Amino acid sequence: MAGLHVRSLLVTGANRGIGLGLVQHFLRMPNPPQWIFATCRDPKGQRAQELQNLASKHPNIIIISLEVSDPTSIKAAAAKVGEHLGGSGLNLLINNAGIVKLNTLDTETFEDMREIYTTNTVGPLLMGQAFLPLLKKAAQGSPGSELSCSKAAIINMSSIGGSIASSYGWELMQITSYRCSKAALNMLSRCQSLAYKEHGILCVALHPGWVQTDLGSCAGHAVGIALGRVHQSSAADFTAPSQALGMGCISSSAPQPPVTVDDSVQGMLKVLSSLSEKDTGAFLDWEGNVLPW
Amino acid sequence: MAGLHVRSLLVTGANRGIGLGLVQHFLRMPNPPQWIFATCRDPKGQRAQELQNLASKHPNIIIISLEVSDPTSIKAAAAKVGEHLGGSGLNLLINNAGIVKLNTLDTETFEDMREIYTTNTVGPLLMGQAFLPLLKKAAQGSPGSELSCSKAAIINMSSIGGSIASSYGWELMQITSYRCSKAALNMLSRCQSLAYKEHGILCVALHPGWVQTDLGSCAGHAVGIALGRVHQSSAADFTAPSQALGMGCISSSAPQPPVTVDDSVQGMLKVLSSLSEKDTGAFLDWEGNVLPW
Repeated sequence: MAGLHVRSLLVTGANRGIGLGLVQHFLRMPNPPQWIFATCRDPKGQRAQELQNLASKHPNIIIISLEVSDPTSIKAAAAKVGEHLGGSGLNLLINNAGIVKLNTLDTETFEDMREIYTTNTVGPLLMGQAFLPLLKKAAQGSPGSELSCSKAAIINMSSIGGSIASSYGWELMQITSYRCSKAALNMLSRCQSLAYKEHGILCVALHPGWVQTDLGSCAGHAVGIALGRVHQSSAADFTAPSQALGMGCISSSAPQPPVTVDDSVQGMLKVLSSLSEKDTGAFLDWEGNVLPW
Repeated sequence: MAGLHVRSLLVTGANRGIGLGLVQHFLRMPNPPQWIFATCRDPKGQRAQELQNLASKHPNIIIISLEVSDPTSIKAAAAKVGEHLGGSGLNLLINNAGIVKLNTLDTETFEDMREIYTTNTVGPLLMGQAFLPLLKKAAQGSPGSELSCSKAAIINMSSIGGSIASSYGWELMQITSYRCSKAALNMLSRCQSLAYKEHGILCVALHPGWVQTDLGSCAGHAVGIALGRVHQSSAADFTAPSQALGMGCISSSAPQPPVTVDDSVQGMLKVLSSLSEKDTGAFLDWEGNVLPW
């Protein structure tokens, strides 16, 4: 991580999984950021306990309440972050929060399609708009003209599931609403890279790997069902429209995701540290491989 | 069009532009379809007059009221089409209806992002679900196992603007909400092709070219603004969030789209007539070229 010197960053969905892992890894850097804005929907809730514990030991973590599907919440968060930063800018915006519902194409609904798009795609667009002044400020305050994550960047957490060309994992998980939202997020990343380049802001879409998080393990559960290794009776819960991933669907008989949070985050930070102008607008995985759109 | 023998088809947004052109060209075939379901939002309105005139001369045109962003309207339309078809199926579903708003990335809003996605992406998904039984029936009633548009197919009207790889026309039109919706539509087409193949249904995403329609000409107007050939004072109308394309924004000083509706439709029908199993899930233009995702 020699090439990554971030004075301030913001991570959405920072209370668990990859988001929490990112916060932990940034804390462990030789020169940790001065401000780590860790956002989540319910900072006071049970599921933010680990983040709260971490923040109580590290005053550079500032927990901020944020619902990325709510424009008002986004604006309020941007105002709060601006206050904390005083006159300085935000170097790194990591749009990590995302949802998935284990629908098949047949069970997708109007509501699920819109809800997942709103969180996974519209949210990152509005976040980019709201934090643009702070990102610009960081870029202006950074020496040199070369784009980098140390200067100013937006990282959109995408997925190989959003690769139209690869149709990765279709036989095991159809999740069309999720795939559509991530393909659209990849397009958004591309648009942001084109629009924000003149402001000195780098933008990429990043696939974290199939990671051992609540979300990843639920996907494993779905795979288990598909492979007949998890009891079919529990399948209904995960294909029901109201069932978001990451809600207690761990099963010991389901295949476990191959990548640990630590490995994924470490890989992604290495990738981030290496990014330059030539990479803006790219779709990369946690090992730095370019993925097909 | 020697290879295209369609007994029944449905076209959304059939009251003007490419939708109306498709209806007209199908009528002119040596063996025109027995049923042409031409849907639009307001069949009684002024903007459906040309379609109404056409239908008064051709009893095989059945005009049906349909709002593709409304699940109830879609279900009602599918029921009506089923009644008309009696026991037979629907060969061809052309998801042509679409909207665009001439926003820049900075002027995109929560509402526009969701509205455009709902019409351009969620609509085609729900249409596929609602008409699946009729498409299946057509496939089952068709001899041979090879996929084709004469047997059963879903054609999603996409756009080169939805090509993430090409970022086509970015300098002239940012229209991020539209681009995201079309990238997602391309993903949907891919998902539909994978899910519906076993039912004998071919699915493709089609780019009609930059066509001389109200929509295409409005895009030309935007280009004119960008090129400084259309007076800037009118620009606000087209970037205002509430301004959908296709609403009286023709300007003689704006560059005109290069492709006529006739050429586009003729080209697309030639492409449709040539499609087979190897093409399902592809993204093609009106001349049959494969486009990058």
